[in-house]
Amino acid sequence: MDNPHFEPQDPAFAQRVRASFDRQGAMATLGATLAAVEAGRVVVALPWAQALTQQHGFLHAGMVATALDSACGYAAFSLMPPDAAVLTIEYKINLLAPAKGQQFRMVGEVIKPGRTVTVVEGRAYAQDGDTEKLIATMGCTVMAVYDRPGVQH
Amino acid sequence: MDNPHFEPQDPAFAQRVRASFDRQGAMATLGATLAAVEAGRVVVALPWAQALTQQHGFLHAGMVATALDSACGYAAFSLMPPDAAVLTIEYKINLLAPAKGQQFRMVGEVIKPGRTVTVVEGRAYAQDGDTEKLIATMGCTVMAVYDRPGVQH
Amino acid sequence: MDNPHFEPQDPAFAQRVRASFDRQGAMATLGATLAAVEAGRVVVALPWAQALTQQHGFLHAGMVATALDSACGYAAFSLMPPDAAVLTIEYKINLLAPAKGQQFRMVGEVIKPGRTVTVVEGRAYAQDGDTEKLIATMGCTVMAVYDRPGVQH
Amino acid sequence: MDNPHFEPQDPAFAQRVRASFDRQGAMATLGATLAAVEAGRVVVALPWAQALTQQHGFLHAGMVATALDSACGYAAFSLMPPDAAVLTIEYKINLLAPAKGQQFRMVGEVIKPGRTVTVVEGRAYAQDGDTEKLIATMGCTVMAVYDRPGVQH
Repeated sequence: MDNPHFEPQDPAFAQRVRASFDRQGAMATLGATLAAVEAGRVVVALPWAQALTQQHGFLHAGMVATALDSACGYAAFSLMPPDAAVLTIEYKINLLAPAKGQQFRMVGEVIKPGRTVTVVEGRAYAQDGDTEKLIATMGCTVMAVYDRPGVQH
Repeated sequence: MDNPHFEPQDPAFAQRVRASFDRQGAMATLGATLAAVEAGRVVVALPWAQALTQQHGFLHAGMVATALDSACGYAAFSLMPPDAAVLTIEYKINLLAPAKGQQFRMVGEVIKPGRTVTVVEGRAYAQDGDTEKLIATMGCTVMAVYDRPGVQH
Repeated sequence: MDNPHFEPQDPAFAQRVRASFDRQGAMATLGATLAAVEAGRVVVALPWAQALTQQHGFLHAGMVATALDSACGYAAFSLMPPDAAVLTIEYKINLLAPAKGQQFRMVGEVIKPGRTVTVVEGRAYAQDGDTEKLIATMGCTVMAVYDRPGVQH
Repeated sequence: MDNPHFEPQDPAFAQRVRASFDRQGAMATLGATLAAVEAGRVVVALPWAQALTQQHGFLHAGMVATALDSACGYAAFSLMPPDAAVLTIEYKINLLAPAKGQQFRMVGEVIKPGRTVTVVEGRAYAQDGDTEKLIATMGCTVMAVYDRPGVQH
C-alpha cells in the first residue's frame, strides 16, 4: 500500500489511541495489543487462541475482522482532532487464505483522511514459524462524530 | 428481505449445521447460540457481555460481524451437499446504529445459492427492553469447497 | 427488502430528483429513465443496448452498477433537505447472474436515512420475455453535503 | 499496493486480454483503451467526456467503476489458463474525491490469484493538468469459469 505522510492534528494522538484501545473489552478478550501507533497507521498484534477459532481450528474470520477493523479505526482516529469520537460506517473484508498461524499482525493505513469521513485500508498477516502470509484485506470507511451522547472520544 | 424457498440437498442439514457450529471456539467465547436453522436461513442469538464491548460500552462492531458472518455462512452451508465445507470469500457490513441492547439477533438468508459460490444477506438486530432495532446489514459471498486438506465439513 | 415508510423533508422531492437526473450525461448515454420516484425509493429503467455490453454480449456489470448506483443515490436524495447535494461514499455490488435480458429494472431503497450518512440497498432485475430475474444486489453509503464548491444540489 | 510477480499460465495472455477487451461494446462507448497489459496487472485509460458525466459535470462514479472493474477483471484474466472465462462475483468501490480531470487512469493488480477465485485491487487516478490524484479504490473478487454455455473466453 502507498503510505503518504500525514500530519496529526493532535500531538498527543498516540496516547489518545492507547487510552481508547484499553477501554475496549473486546480487545482484552481477543488478547490483542497495539504493536505500533503512528499518524495514520496502526498495527494490532494478536496471538492464536483456541477461544477464537472456527470449526477447522483456524482463527475465526470474524476475529480477524475485529482486530483488523480496530487497526483501521484507530489509524483514522490518530488523525482526528482531540474532541472527535470515531464510528465505523462500513467495512469490507476479503479473506484470502485460512487464518493459520501462531501470531497475527493487523495493519491499518489511512488512504484518505477527511473532516467527516476517512477511508482506511487494512491488511492482515499470519505468522507461521518463520513465514508471514497475507490472509485478508479490508476497505473501511470511518466517520468522526462530535458531541454525540453516549459516544465518548 | 425476500426469502425464496430453497430445497436442501441434504435432509440432515440442520444437524450438520449444529455440529459444525459447536466446533467453533469463537461462538462459545461470544456466548452465541443457534436460534433457528432452516434451509437457506439461520438465526444466531447473542447476549450483551462486557467482554465483547468497544470503548463506549456497546457491542464491538467486530463481534456483531463475527456472529452475523456465522449466521450467513451457516445459511449457505445448510443448502450444500453433505461433503462440502464452507469458506467465506468476503463480506461487507454496514453499521447503521450503535450495538446497544441486552440481546442481539443475527439473521442470515441466502439470496442466490450456487454449486460453487453462494450469496447471502445478513441483518443484525439489537433488542433493548421491548424494542428491536436494525443495527447492521451484511452482504456475504461464500464458497463451497470439497476435499481440501485441513478444511473439514 | 424491508421498506419502511419515510417522511420527505422536501415536499417537492420528486421534482428535485427528476431535475438532477436530467443533468446526468451518463444516464442519457445509457438510455436510462426514471420509472418511479417515491420518498426513499427510486426505480431506474434501462433497455439492453449493444453499446453497453461486455465481451459475452450481456450488459456490462459496470453499466448495471451505474444505473443501480443512480437508483440508490436518488433514493437517498429524495429524503434530503432542498439545499443538500448527494455524494456516493462507497458501494458494493454482488453480481448474481449475467445481465441477460431485453430490459432492466434497478430499485434503490433507503434502509437508514441520516443527517449526514444514508445507507441504501439496491436490487437489479433483468426482464427476459415474461420472466424477471434478480441479477445484482448493492449496498450503498451516501453522504449529504452542503455548500461545497463545484457540487450543486 | 504490493505487486508480487506472477507467472502467467498462458504465454499469449496479453493477446487474449486485448481480444476480449475489443469485444466489449461498453469499453468503446466509454472511449476506454488498454494502456498496459502485464501478468496480473492491467491499466485502462479513459478520457473525460460529457456523455459520461453525473449532475455536477464530473465523471459519473458508475463510469469510473466500469473502467476500474474492467482493469481488475482483465488483471485476473491475464493469469488464467487459455480456456478460462472470467466473471466478476462482486466488487466494492470507495469514491475518495470527485472524478474531476481531463483523463483517467485505472489500475488493476492481482492480490491473490486462485484456480477458481482471484482477488484484485484497483485504483483510479484523475489527471488534471500536471497533477494526478487518487480518486477511487476498489476491491474485486473474480471467478474463472470453464465450459459455461453463453460465456466464452
